[in-house]
Amino acid sequence: MQLYDSAMAPNPRRVRIFLAEKGITVPVVPMDIGKAENRKPPFLAKNPLGGLPVLELDDGTCIAESVAICRYFEETQPQPPLLGTSATDRALVEMWQRRMELELFRNVTGCFQNTHAFFKGRISQVPEYGEVCRNAARARLAWLDGELASRPFVAGERYTIADITALCAIDFGRVSDIRIAPEQKHLQRWYDAVSSRPSAKA
Amino acid sequence: MQLYDSAMAPNPRRVRIFLAEKGITVPVVPMDIGKAENRKPPFLAKNPLGGLPVLELDDGTCIAESVAICRYFEETQPQPPLLGTSATDRALVEMWQRRMELELFRNVTGCFQNTHAFFKGRISQVPEYGEVCRNAARARLAWLDGELASRPFVAGERYTIADITALCAIDFGRVSDIRIAPEQKHLQRWYDAVSSRPSAKA
Repeated sequence: MQLYDSAMAPNPRRVRIFLAEKGITVPVVPMDIGKAENRKPPFLAKNPLGGLPVLELDDGTCIAESVAICRYFEETQPQPPLLGTSATDRALVEMWQRRMELELFRNVTGCFQNTHAFFKGRISQVPEYGEVCRNAARARLAWLDGELASRPFVAGERYTIADITALCAIDFGRVSDIRIAPEQKHLQRWYDAVSSRPSAKA
Repeated sequence: MQLYDSAMAPNPRRVRIFLAEKGITVPVVPMDIGKAENRKPPFLAKNPLGGLPVLELDDGTCIAESVAICRYFEETQPQPPLLGTSATDRALVEMWQRRMELELFRNVTGCFQNTHAFFKGRISQVPEYGEVCRNAARARLAWLDGELASRPFVAGERYTIADITALCAIDFGRVSDIRIAPEQKHLQRWYDAVSSRPSAKA
């Protein structure tokens, strides 16, 4: 198998951290998103939507979408569990992963895509919407700070995929001036803990 | 257990269809989103983000996020499988579920939220972004038509959660004039098949 990857983009990092936490090594094919290599053939045969990362299995099956790739590795190597354990826990991890993705990650990337020069000419930018995203992402950080007052990790007592999504969102937010505020002590404590894990370098 | 529900909104319908396909009945608590009942206490103690649906278990645990609720029921009653079977299949179903959600459902709801009078004063509407979403949703329908030329369901040979997400997106798209085009024969064939299942009335 091999993983089509990009060192620049936030979604591929989610999978790299997930793999590092599992202790799994996968051969990587670096793609140049600056040259839109992922938006042209032959890559479009692997993912017609052009997104990265993509995991190509030995039989040629291509799995796109970061969380779907994580699901594949959770199924094939369950330890350590990063997507939950019991039925209730798996549902709660999925809830928190989705909240981190839809409420935080998507606002961070929505701000970047609609305000940053990188996306000029690549998509129909709407700067006003980018500002809505920036404000929403900042509001979600304040909310997350309150949530983290009562538990060590986003989804509870254990490190999960929800922490990975939140970490990648927050690190990618810096370029759009979306940052942990000085008074957000719980969020900062959590951030220091998850970003000092060896996997965060992935 | 009980399910906090709304007959008007598209996310709760995803869970109702999922439950109907599983043959599971859950007591329902209808919420009035027109009066923003889901955005006020006491409901905010169940989901601080105010979204519907929410599944409340007998021990008081609240699971928000439609797909997380579906995950809970897939775990507790695996048959019929709607989230995939083998490791590869589960990953591919997750990939298609995410594509239907992030590429289609989110553009349909993004258009509605940013252009429809219902959301005026409820969120910071950006009509220009709503138009970007409308165009993107229409483009995704054209793409999906091509994908469905070679298989009966969105994720392959079997009906899955990806079909549910796509069906709810397309039905909700009508109010924003996002519709299957006359030439999209494969998409129409698929739509006729999934919307004639008894679960589609849920």
